[in-house]
Amino acid sequence: MRTEPTTFSAESYFATQLPPSTLQHDIDNIRQFLARQVKEGRNVVLVTSGGTTVPLELNVVRFLDNFSTRGATSAEYFLKAGYAVIFMHRQFSLQPFSRHYSHSTNPFLDFLEIETAQNELGGSSRISVTPEKREHLLEVLTAYKTVHALGTLHTLTFVTVNDYLWLLRAVSQEMAILQRRSMFYLAAAVSDFFLPRQKMSEHKIQSGKGSLLIEMDQVPKILKPLVDEWTPGGYIVSFKLETDENLLLPKAKQALERYGHQVVIGNDLHRRKFEVVFVTRKSPPPTVVADATKPTDPFDEYWLRIDIPAHPAPGEPVKEIEEDIVAELVKRHAEWIKQA
Amino acid sequence: MRTEPTTFSAESYFATQLPPSTLQHDIDNIRQFLARQVKEGRNVVLVTSGGTTVPLELNVVRFLDNFSTRGATSAEYFLKAGYAVIFMHRQFSLQPFSRHYSHSTNPFLDFLEIETAQNELGGSSRISVTPEKREHLLEVLTAYKTVHALGTLHTLTFVTVNDYLWLLRAVSQEMAILQRRSMFYLAAAVSDFFLPRQKMSEHKIQSGKGSLLIEMDQVPKILKPLVDEWTPGGYIVSFKLETDENLLLPKAKQALERYGHQVVIGNDLHRRKFEVVFVTRKSPPPTVVADATKPTDPFDEYWLRIDIPAHPAPGEPVKEIEEDIVAELVKRHAEWIKQA
Repeated sequence: MRTEPTTFSAESYFATQLPPSTLQHDIDNIRQFLARQVKEGRNVVLVTSGGTTVPLELNVVRFLDNFSTRGATSAEYFLKAGYAVIFMHRQFSLQPFSRHYSHSTNPFLDFLEIETAQNELGGSSRISVTPEKREHLLEVLTAYKTVHALGTLHTLTFVTVNDYLWLLRAVSQEMAILQRRSMFYLAAAVSDFFLPRQKMSEHKIQSGKGSLLIEMDQVPKILKPLVDEWTPGGYIVSFKLETDENLLLPKAKQALERYGHQVVIGNDLHRRKFEVVFVTRKSPPPTVVADATKPTDPFDEYWLRIDIPAHPAPGEPVKEIEEDIVAELVKRHAEWIKQA
Repeated sequence: MRTEPTTFSAESYFATQLPPSTLQHDIDNIRQFLARQVKEGRNVVLVTSGGTTVPLELNVVRFLDNFSTRGATSAEYFLKAGYAVIFMHRQFSLQPFSRHYSHSTNPFLDFLEIETAQNELGGSSRISVTPEKREHLLEVLTAYKTVHALGTLHTLTFVTVNDYLWLLRAVSQEMAILQRRSMFYLAAAVSDFFLPRQKMSEHKIQSGKGSLLIEMDQVPKILKPLVDEWTPGGYIVSFKLETDENLLLPKAKQALERYGHQVVIGNDLHRRKFEVVFVTRKSPPPTVVADATKPTDPFDEYWLRIDIPAHPAPGEPVKEIEEDIVAELVKRHAEWIKQA
């Protein structure tokens, strides 16, 4: 693997790549959703979740992928905190509420039972919930129905990194009307690389004889125009996932410096379920000290950790770090709204 | 994109790439499952389903992906036809039975209702199924419970193409005891390319400055040793998906010639839900005709098509082509067992 120079700015990206066909329809729905939230006085958070794909062919059979599951969990806690949530997620990735019943790890068919009753008309069958699963399902179902009744959750789906970029621009431009009352919780794992449609093979790449060499271009740095142009009032939280813990803080600080947004949440791949770090700029900025040999760090770090039970009892509810991440952000967002 | 020579045979692949950590555990379970099916006199089909990933890093954040949904649907029809099924699928891809309730398109939380009843002890809540969804759920649930009671479905999961290759070899070797009573329905979309662990980056690839150049090696042609060595008695069905319809028959015939197995089912990406073609060798082989300018085609083609209703009524059950594919294969498999 080697790197070569690249060219795409956000501007040239949107000028050369095609929008998803449903974009205008999505925008119309978002506009309605936001109008209601403004009227009802709610803060709104955009939560992005799941990985983006990078198609290698126009008739896509193969694609690059990556993963992220933080968003679905966090969206539930934002809803609980009274926020309206635009949940923009990778198609088929986990969603708030239904995430508790993954078809792979906790399939709902397993806790439904068929009861057959006899009466004078013959047998009749009724479906019921296994007693030990009833309480938790009732809790999830109640939260789900409440959110649907209030109309505080709006779901958008993307598949490719191109869908993601177009949607993010459109949603953030619409959310600009909320000014400081909007938050952006950018938890999706967005590919850094993509294959411009102009370079894609039209048909399935034939395996033929030999290896496959793919050169992908860099995805434009989208946080810069998001902060500066699309939604200047928003409280913007981005994530930095690393597997080398020595890179975590330097990369988080570099992102803050480069894009000028509010918070970077750093997480190590293997520790992300019980430890994250909030990196922010010091406010007010530190005054320059006389001793110039000790440069002042312009950043604050706030480590958030939870205990993971060594041997959780089966069925015992497990504390989720997203609960504390969201609580901390809701507090900081409120202070930031007050400062305006 | 350009191609370069490559080197991996099935033998050198398994000699240099590591098995998944759960392999021995999976093998033990398969052995038990197969012993029971042999005792109870069932035919067994291995159904593979979903796409394989190709990790680009050892601590995987990015991966190549592709898709396939045929397997989950087909597995249900094999079970209905009395087969025992080993369902080897990509983690989080659709599964038999639960596939009807995709969290994205038909979430089960939407058709559960909370009924609150008052009695002398206060309020109590009961969960029930929306009347119009009851009949279909009862049908799916009954089939699901029956299969579980009979013990005729065994599920295995893979994520990477490496997991897939190791599992396929192990399962096919175990299934060899069934001889002609085993079928292989290889519907998974397996990557043609992979990144050998020796070439992987240890940590997340840094986006840095510039494009990403990835050179991937070809996945070894696994059908050859499957047919010749691992499970010589099996009835083997592979799939060929193309986006260029002119390539469909040539590629299907080429696969049959190259690997010497029983059936290739060809499908075009955009027509795969209502049209497939079964390609087999003529039996007995055609005699050579005098006119050598007209070469005799040694292959039979059998086109299977279903009508797609132009405007299906909402909720109306839609005919699935997998029902007919499985019926045709069950018939051919029975004839083939008799020929032994």
